Formats: sequence, structure tokens, C-alpha cells
Amino acid sequence: MLRIGLLGCGRIGQVHAQSIALNRDAKLVAVADAIEASATKLASEHDAEVRDASAICAADDIDAVLIGTPTDTHVDFILAAAKSGKAILCEKPFDLDTDRIKQCLAQLDPSTVLMFGFQRRFDPHFGALKTQINQGAIGDVEMINLISRDPGAPPLSYIARSGGIFADMMIHDLDMARFLLNEEPVSVQAMGAALVDPAIGEAGDFDSAVVQLQTASGKICQISCSRRATYGYDQRAEVHGSKGALQAKNQHENAVRLANADGYRDAPLMNFFLERYMPAYRAELDHFIEAVRNNSTPSPSGQDALRAQMLAEAALKSAKTNQTVFLEQ
Amino acid sequence: MLRIGLLGCGRIGQVHAQSIALNRDAKLVAVADAIEASATKLASEHDAEVRDASAICAADDIDAVLIGTPTDTHVDFILAAAKSGKAILCEKPFDLDTDRIKQCLAQLDPSTVLMFGFQRRFDPHFGALKTQINQGAIGDVEMINLISRDPGAPPLSYIARSGGIFADMMIHDLDMARFLLNEEPVSVQAMGAALVDPAIGEAGDFDSAVVQLQTASGKICQISCSRRATYGYDQRAEVHGSKGALQAKNQHENAVRLANADGYRDAPLMNFFLERYMPAYRAELDHFIEAVRNNSTPSPSGQDALRAQMLAEAALKSAKTNQTVFLEQ
Amino acid sequence: MLRIGLLGCGRIGQVHAQSIALNRDAKLVAVADAIEASATKLASEHDAEVRDASAICAADDIDAVLIGTPTDTHVDFILAAAKSGKAILCEKPFDLDTDRIKQCLAQLDPSTVLMFGFQRRFDPHFGALKTQINQGAIGDVEMINLISRDPGAPPLSYIARSGGIFADMMIHDLDMARFLLNEEPVSVQAMGAALVDPAIGEAGDFDSAVVQLQTASGKICQISCSRRATYGYDQRAEVHGSKGALQAKNQHENAVRLANADGYRDAPLMNFFLERYMPAYRAELDHFIEAVRNNSTPSPSGQDALRAQMLAEAALKSAKTNQTVFLEQ
Amino acid sequence: MLRIGLLGCGRIGQVHAQSIALNRDAKLVAVADAIEASATKLASEHDAEVRDASAICAADDIDAVLIGTPTDTHVDFILAAAKSGKAILCEKPFDLDTDRIKQCLAQLDPSTVLMFGFQRRFDPHFGALKTQINQGAIGDVEMINLISRDPGAPPLSYIARSGGIFADMMIHDLDMARFLLNEEPVSVQAMGAALVDPAIGEAGDFDSAVVQLQTASGKICQISCSRRATYGYDQRAEVHGSKGALQAKNQHENAVRLANADGYRDAPLMNFFLERYMPAYRAELDHFIEAVRNNSTPSPSGQDALRAQMLAEAALKSAKTNQTVFLEQ
Repeated sequence: MLRIGLLGCGRIGQVHAQSIALNRDAKLVAVADAIEASATKLASEHDAEVRDASAICAADDIDAVLIGTPTDTHVDFILAAAKSGKAILCEKPFDLDTDRIKQCLAQLDPSTVLMFGFQRRFDPHFGALKTQINQGAIGDVEMINLISRDPGAPPLSYIARSGGIFADMMIHDLDMARFLLNEEPVSVQAMGAALVDPAIGEAGDFDSAVVQLQTASGKICQISCSRRATYGYDQRAEVHGSKGALQAKNQHENAVRLANADGYRDAPLMNFFLERYMPAYRAELDHFIEAVRNNSTPSPSGQDALRAQMLAEAALKSAKTNQTVFLEQ
Repeated sequence: MLRIGLLGCGRIGQVHAQSIALNRDAKLVAVADAIEASATKLASEHDAEVRDASAICAADDIDAVLIGTPTDTHVDFILAAAKSGKAILCEKPFDLDTDRIKQCLAQLDPSTVLMFGFQRRFDPHFGALKTQINQGAIGDVEMINLISRDPGAPPLSYIARSGGIFADMMIHDLDMARFLLNEEPVSVQAMGAALVDPAIGEAGDFDSAVVQLQTASGKICQISCSRRATYGYDQRAEVHGSKGALQAKNQHENAVRLANADGYRDAPLMNFFLERYMPAYRAELDHFIEAVRNNSTPSPSGQDALRAQMLAEAALKSAKTNQTVFLEQ
Repeated sequence: MLRIGLLGCGRIGQVHAQSIALNRDAKLVAVADAIEASATKLASEHDAEVRDASAICAADDIDAVLIGTPTDTHVDFILAAAKSGKAILCEKPFDLDTDRIKQCLAQLDPSTVLMFGFQRRFDPHFGALKTQINQGAIGDVEMINLISRDPGAPPLSYIARSGGIFADMMIHDLDMARFLLNEEPVSVQAMGAALVDPAIGEAGDFDSAVVQLQTASGKICQISCSRRATYGYDQRAEVHGSKGALQAKNQHENAVRLANADGYRDAPLMNFFLERYMPAYRAELDHFIEAVRNNSTPSPSGQDALRAQMLAEAALKSAKTNQTVFLEQ
Repeated sequence: MLRIGLLGCGRIGQVHAQSIALNRDAKLVAVADAIEASATKLASEHDAEVRDASAICAADDIDAVLIGTPTDTHVDFILAAAKSGKAILCEKPFDLDTDRIKQCLAQLDPSTVLMFGFQRRFDPHFGALKTQINQGAIGDVEMINLISRDPGAPPLSYIARSGGIFADMMIHDLDMARFLLNEEPVSVQAMGAALVDPAIGEAGDFDSAVVQLQTASGKICQISCSRRATYGYDQRAEVHGSKGALQAKNQHENAVRLANADGYRDAPLMNFFLERYMPAYRAELDHFIEAVRNNSTPSPSGQDALRAQMLAEAALKSAKTNQTVFLEQ
């Protein structure tokens, strides 16, 4: 029975608590949150204790820590939890500063179990797509297209602290690109615009952005992100290979089709990322729990989180300098 | 060069004239129509002569006759054209009286080339479905579902002369059932209703009708017909077999999909039967022309037209008597 | 907190136990099963007691009883549980003998809360279809097509006790027909065959069966059932109305599409009914729990279960007598 | 009756001749080809004369000239035909040298009727998509994704003379980008690779290439091209706007779907560009003929062809210099 401490009782923290309740091999021991009422509520729903975050990191009766606190606290909590030998599952992004990420990784004992929450890798549809690539269904991967559109832009206050569209939103797609390319991108071209809300542009960010990545062997990935999608949460991947192509289609609210004089109408897409990725979040946590129990290495790793952040930084630099940015290897 | 005479210059006659123009092995020599202006117009468009229908049936400079005149004239024109050795392509239905059909077939010389215009057999989609059945893609055929809905009901004046929904409309599906079952149905159950327009019911006909057919070996076909479809001309077939299932999907006006807050919208179906089946009509005529030129037997035959009409009669009888009707073999 | 007793710890019983665990307003108190090991296992997984079925029906510390035992025990357990004022959720079919169903219903106190487990009504897709009908999306319902195919036939030993394909399998579709027609069918035509396995025919049953139903106002429903579907668990509904048509599409294993020289390939359908209908089973139980807690009447009722069984009997009679069977109202 | 002369009797020339035969307002008078047998064959099939290309450009009995000869002859034939007042429809690309294009346009009399053969604009599906944009179905265009994949690479000998993947293949997508953006792109980022055939890379070209374009107002278009697609001729467009998104789906060989244990299989895409775009080629020529007869200005114009070529050059430059290339306006 893996004993888990949870840092952060926001939306993701609540999802994790629910996933723990459904996993017979784990138990939620304690939770922490800067807002005490949030911690108290979640604790009572799951028969867990409320403790201080530092206390959880250091506790003897806890085996693993889930970190769902604000991004700028990740590094400190990782280091604290690692110090007392905890296994760690941390939400993305690792940190907005790649140098700080590198320093953190350098300080960790090699035996530290550290996984990052790129939950899309655990989505059953993207997962089935990856499995078919691995089975050779399309031969060698050549070109990838990722489309990722949020139903709406977050508040400007969030945008301001987010690290920008590449680090905050596209980082999921940048990780997915690495996951599906199975080879490190070496060059990045990016463009951005504020088409959804001029205020986002005035805040120095983009709400619409595209990237082209290329690996050393020439494989190419295009990513298109928008903070707007009137028809729901748009999440697609398409991989073109030497023997065929694979695509992961979107998830609709239901499977009902209406036909009338206007044509044929299918339901909009699931609108909320927690609903869309609920099975992924649960599978992600199951993977972490199983890996810790089996002393195997969970994935995606801290190194994966570092590379995704490096790609996000490179994209931002390309969009600002009008140059192809090459990544250190 | 096959020299063709055309009886009937209505919609189907015009389609046939166009198909002849696109076929390098045939030439339209003469046309006839009860409405002289129709004949004159079509003749001038295709450099053909206007002649009397009887004269076309008897002409020395004509090899084949296409019959697209009212149903009650079919038998006489078939007999007249056959008498002078013409190859014949006649529109469905053969005749509304199966006894008269049998007498006509009995009078024909065995060498007579006689084909009937069940054009759906030549539709590229239904044709591809049939080809896959023949190739064993689904093993043994077990159960078939046919759905056939017109965009709207014809005028009551047409309904009155039509022979009823089974003989006028469902006869296409009854032929398709025989085509796909590849075995003769032996029993028929039918139900009907006037749901679209009570006046159709008052005229003694149905506008909504269903049939279940079964063959001696147990294979089953369900057919559903309606004189209404707000979303276009609905024409589907689905065949379930021991190793899989095949379906022929509908034809939309275009391939554009719109996504917005209402969901995803595809175009309505092609609305007009001539547009929907234009490639089928052309392939049908090409098949007839090629068969005549090669002295092979075109299909569907007069016997096929007889069996379809027998099924239509059986369906009507079942709907009226509330009994399963068994067909003579 | 609704205190629940569970009779029958087979597949459905296990599903119900899991649904109770996820419902904050209910608690599983006791379970019973003819096979004691099954009861013991389920009880230990859910912190419940093992008791005798009669004891559960009579218990003071239990508010509601879920009946998932063999069909021939349903009536006795319903009467026993009702006697001590329990709310009851019973699996379909009520009983294979409609007279016995009527007697049972006659014996129940009018205040008895009795619901039957036609879980498809709670499927999110069929439910959304029904909601759109109720909202007038397609005007008046005219014609319905239901297709229902199991991935494979059950063992012959099961077939022998099942009551036949109409009462065992098609009963779900007969209930769905009533649910979607929103009007009582008055006439039934049926055909059947043993196309999947001749042994099923030798056992006096069909493995392939079709039905046509009609209501007093003329609405028509066609149902097609097969004990075979090589591509998964096929469950579709299509409703055609005066203003449009609705269809509930199938559920695939995943949303990945592969394109190669053979064409485009989507995943097979979910194969197992418990996986396909898991959300439906949970919503069904939530509905029951909420109704009992709110003193409202849950649906579908005992009367619904009776009408479905009457339709199954009528279908069997039609298939055997080759006549349209009319139902008493 | 528009009297047409045709320069070039290759595949496109033959398509144009067929389209003329189906247009009642035009007549093919004369054809020319460097290979005399090709000219003779096409002339005999269409009752046209064989003449020298220069003679056709200068002829008194010809109103319009269609140019389907090798790219490096386009400018000379355009100038010659324009000199004698002919209306001109020329295949893409205008010329591989944008300076030469500009000089040609400068020499033309402003009254010259000059249209270019970007036939995709006339495809019914892309056309319906454009119509819906114009009708405001998706509000303001924000982001576009174009995917364009040929079933296979052309011979190396063709590659060598082609001007490279951007000018030869992607030029269609670059034109489509301008057509759908409805605003001039001002910046271009491009990447390329030889993933299909290393020999293409050795010949200095790419077989896989991507581009990102941006307009002055910030609108973005991504294009992905490959010389390989195992599943047919892949031609898609997707436009995301402030109020919704539009996509033009691919054209399959037929509408038959097979379900079995491997899943659901749709037919491959139409494989050959002439089959895929046959309706587009005919509509393109009809548009040209109608414009000439009505003294209206046909579109796309010489200026459109120039801008597409400028984008192709910019893309090549970006791929080679690793910089965003800005276009002169």
C-alpha cells in the first residue's frame, strides 16, 4: 500500500485524490494547500490529514509526494521530498527557467524517483496511437501534425504568471512531439499572434501560436495552438510515416448525430480538460504508483520535463528573433 | 456503333441521351415522346430525329430501344421492339400486374436481349459493396438492412397512378435485396402507414412502409422506406455476414465540415435522385451497350423485374392481410 | 445514506457494488449469492456482510434491495422484499411468463418502489438521443431502426434456460422501442433463423431475429438482432421524424484511425457489454438511489418490464405462426 | 461560341479538351504539341486541327488560348497570344523566375485577359469551404492548416526540372493559403527534408516540406507537403476562425465501410490527381469561358500566379538560410 502525500488541493489535486481512492494499492495519507479550507475539505472527503507541505515532504509515514502547487514552488518541494527519499510526481511545467531545472536535476540523488505530469501520454487514444507506431503500423515516422485548442483563454491574471503560451499551453504538445517523434528535435521555428484577445498581446503574450520542429534525421513536426475553440476542447495528433498515417480523433460529448435540412450535426467536443483527460489522469497516477511499488522508473522523467521546457524557450526565442533556433543536445 | 432509339423524353430519357453522347460506341438515332415539344427539344440537342414510337420499334436503322415511357406502355413497346429484333433497356417497373409480366416474358423469343433499369446495381458504392461480398469479405450473408427515403412525396396525382409505395418506390430496394442476398426471398412481412401526408392514406397508399424478407436458407432482409427525409435523399445498405459487415454510406453534397458551438455539421445529402445516381445511370447504359455489342446477356433481366414485382405484390398483400406471404418459386 | 442489500454476486452484482462505492448517498450493507464464495469475495471487497437472501429481504437495517439473481427467482424475491417495504431494483427480464408478472404486480402494494434494470435507457448516448426527441429536434417520431448484435453467442446451456432470443436478448431493444416511440406498440411481426450456430436452432431458438412493431397511430419500429458481430458489440438506434432524424453511433475501443494502402481503419467496437454500458449501469443505480431518497418514482417500472415481456412473447408467437400478432392494451 | 486553341496535348491538355466538349459555349479549333503524334491523336478525337503553336497564338479564327506546355515556354506563349488579343488560360507555375514573371506582366496590355490554372480553387469542396468563410460561418479567419500529400514521388528526371518542391508541388497550397487567408502573407518560415527518397535530397530538393506563413494582421497558415502517401492523394484544408472552424475532408474511392475483427475500414483516397480534381478542372475552364464571353475578369490572375511564386521562392530561401523571410508587398 503506497502512502501518498498531496501538495496542492486545486483541480489537479482533487483529481489525484479521486484516482488514489480508485487505486487499491495506494492510500492518501495527508494533504496540504496554501488555502487551508481547500486542504480541510479534500482531507475530510478522503479521510486524510491536513499537514504542512514541508511536513509532508519530510514525513516518515509517507512514501510518495504528488506536487500540484504553483510552478515556482516545484523545485523546492522536489528537493525537499527527494531529500527524505520520497518518490515524486510533479505537475508540468517543471520550472519556467531551464537553468534552474538543470540545477535541480543536478542536485538530486540518482536514485530519486521523479515523474512529471504530462498526462496526455496516458490518454487511451494518444496511447493507442503511440502503440501502433511502436508496432510498426506506419513504418518510419516522417511528419507530425498536432492541433491543440483551448475552448477559451484563461484570465489575464493567469496569463501574466503563465510563462507564455509556449511554456504554459504548447508545452504539452512539445512533449507530445518528443513522445511521438521518438527522436530529439534540434531546430525550432515559431510564429505567434494575439488574435483572440488584443489584451493578451498587450501583456506580451500570444494567444495563437505555431511551431515547426525538426530532428537530426530530418523528421518534422508542426504544432498549432489557439486559446480559442468555439466547438470544445480540440486535441488532435496525426503522424505520417513511410508506410501509412495515424490520427487520434477528437472526443465528442456524445455519439448522437442529428440530420435535418441544415445537414448532419454531431455533438461538440468535450469542453473541459479535466473531463477530456480524466482517464489519462487516472492512468498516469496508476503508472506512477505501480512504478514506485515495483522499483521501476516511471516516465516521463525530469529529463523529459527539461527538454519540453527547452523547446518552449526555443520557440519563444524563434518567434521573437525571426530565426530558426537550434537546441543544444 | 450501336444505333439507339429512345422512347420517352422525360427526365430519365434525357439522362440516357446524355449518357449516349458520352459513350463512343453508341449513337442516338431517334427519339419519341407523347409530348412532341419534348421530343423535338431532345432530338435537336443530340442531332437525332423525332419519330413515332412504333416506327422506332420497327426501324431498320436502329439496333436498340430504350423505353422510358409510362409503365402501362412498357409491355406493348417491349413486344413491338422485340418483334423486330431490337435489344431493349426498359425502365422499372416492368408492369404493375405480374400476370401480364409473365405473359409478356412468355411471348418473347428466347434470344431477345431485355434488360431493366434498376440503376442502383450500377451505383459505384453499392457496386463496390456487392464486389466485396462476392470476394468473401464478410463470409456468408446473414442479415441485410436497407434504408431508402425520398426527400419528399410526389404529387397525389402521381401517387394515384404509381401502383403504391411497394411497387413504385420500394421496388428498388426489393431488387437490391435480391441482388445482395443472392438467394430468392420466399416469405414477406410488411407494414405501412401514412405518416407524412394523410391524403396519401386517403388515396389508399402508404408513405411509410417496412418489409422483412426471408430466404429458404434463413437469410433475412429488412427494408425501411419513407416518402420524407428533411436532410436529402437517403440511400443506405448494410449487409451483415458470418465474418463481418459492410455498409454503403450516403452521399453528401460536399465534404466540408463546420465546427462551432452547436457542434460539427456536415452537408446535407445530395437531394435529387438524378444527381445522386448520375454515375449509376451512365454505368447502367454503358453495361447495356457493351452487352449488346458483345452478344452477352445484360443484367438485371426481365426475370429480375418479374421477381421484384412479385415481392412488391407480396408486401402489399402482407400489409393488408396481416399475414406472412409466401412466394411461389 | 441508503442502505442496500444485494442479491446475486455475479457480473451485474459486482457492477452494482462498484457503483454503490462511487455513490456518496448509498452504502452496501449485505450481499447474498447461491455460491457462497462469490458472496464472501464481494462482501470483503466492499466491507459488507454475507447474509441469506431471505434475510436481506426482511432485514431492518436495509432500505433497498438489488436483485441480480436468476430470472426464475425474481418474482419471489420481489414479493419478499416488497413485503418488508424495501425499494427494489431488479434485473431484466421480470419473468419469462407474463401471467406470473401480472400476478406479481397485482400482489404488490401500490406504494412499492419497483424499478427494472433496462440500463440502456441510462446510456449517455441513447439518453442524449431521447432528450433531443423530447426537445422536438426531429418533430414527430415516425420510424425507428434498432440494430443490436452481440460479439458472440452464449453457451448452449445458457441458451436453453434463456427464454429464447426475443425474451433474453431482444427484450432490451423492445424496451428501447417503447422508450423511443413513446407510444405503445399494438402489432408485431417477427422472423428468426439459426444462422450463427445450427445447434441453437436444434435447441429450438434463433440466433438471428428481426421484428417490426407498429403503434396505434402508425409509428413503426424495426429491430434486428444477431448473436454474432465479428467487430465488437454493435448497439445502434436511429429515429426518423417529421423534421429530421437522429442516430446514436457505436462506441469504438479508441479514436485512432490508421491510413495505409488498404484504406482507413478505425478501431473495433468495445467488445464487452459491461465495458460498453459501464456508465449506463452507474447512472441507472444513481437514478434508483436518488428516486428512493426523494420518494419519487423510479423508471423503468414493473409495468415497463411487463410490456417488454409481452412484446417478446408476441414476437415469438409471430415468428412461429406467420401472422401479425396484436397486443392487448 | 468561344473558339479555343490548345497548346500542349499532355494530360492537362486532354482534360481541357474533354471539358471543352462538354461546354456548349466553346469549341476546340486547333491543338499543338511538340510531339506531333500527341497533337494528331487529340485533334482527331475532337474534330480539331493540328497547327503550329505560334500559328495558334496568331490565328484569326481563335479567341482564346490554353497553355499547357512546359513551364519555361509559358512566358513566350503568353506574350505571343496576348499580342494578337487572345484570352489566355495558362497552367501553373507562371515561370520559375519571379523577375521574369514581373517583366512579362509589365509587357502585357492592361486589357489582356490572363488566368492561371490553380484548379483547386474550383474544387467543389474547397469552393464550398471558401463560400462558407465568405458567408461569415467562422467569423474572422485566424489559423489555417493545409495538408497535401502525393501518392508517390515523380521520377528524378522530373524533379530535376521541377523548380523544387515549393515551386512545383506546394505552390498549389501557397495559392490556397492566399485564397483562404484573403490577405497577403508577409513572412515565411520553412523546413524541408528528403525522407521519402535520399536521391531527391542528393538532387538538391526536398520530398517533405513544411511552411508557416503570417499576414500583416497576424493570421497564420501552416502547410505540410509530402511526396508520399500510401493511402491515396491526400488533400485537406482546415480553417480556424473566431466563431468556428471549417475543414474540407478527403475524397475516398467509394463510400463502402467494412467492419470485421480488425475494425472498421473505409476505402483509400482517390489516388490520381486528375480523377480527384476532374470536377475542378471542368469548373475552372467553364469559369474561364464564361468570363471571356462576358468580358469579366477571370481569376486567379497573373498577379495571383506571381504572388504564389514569390511565396515559393521565399520558402526555399527560408529553408536554406534558417531565417524568417519577409516578402516585399
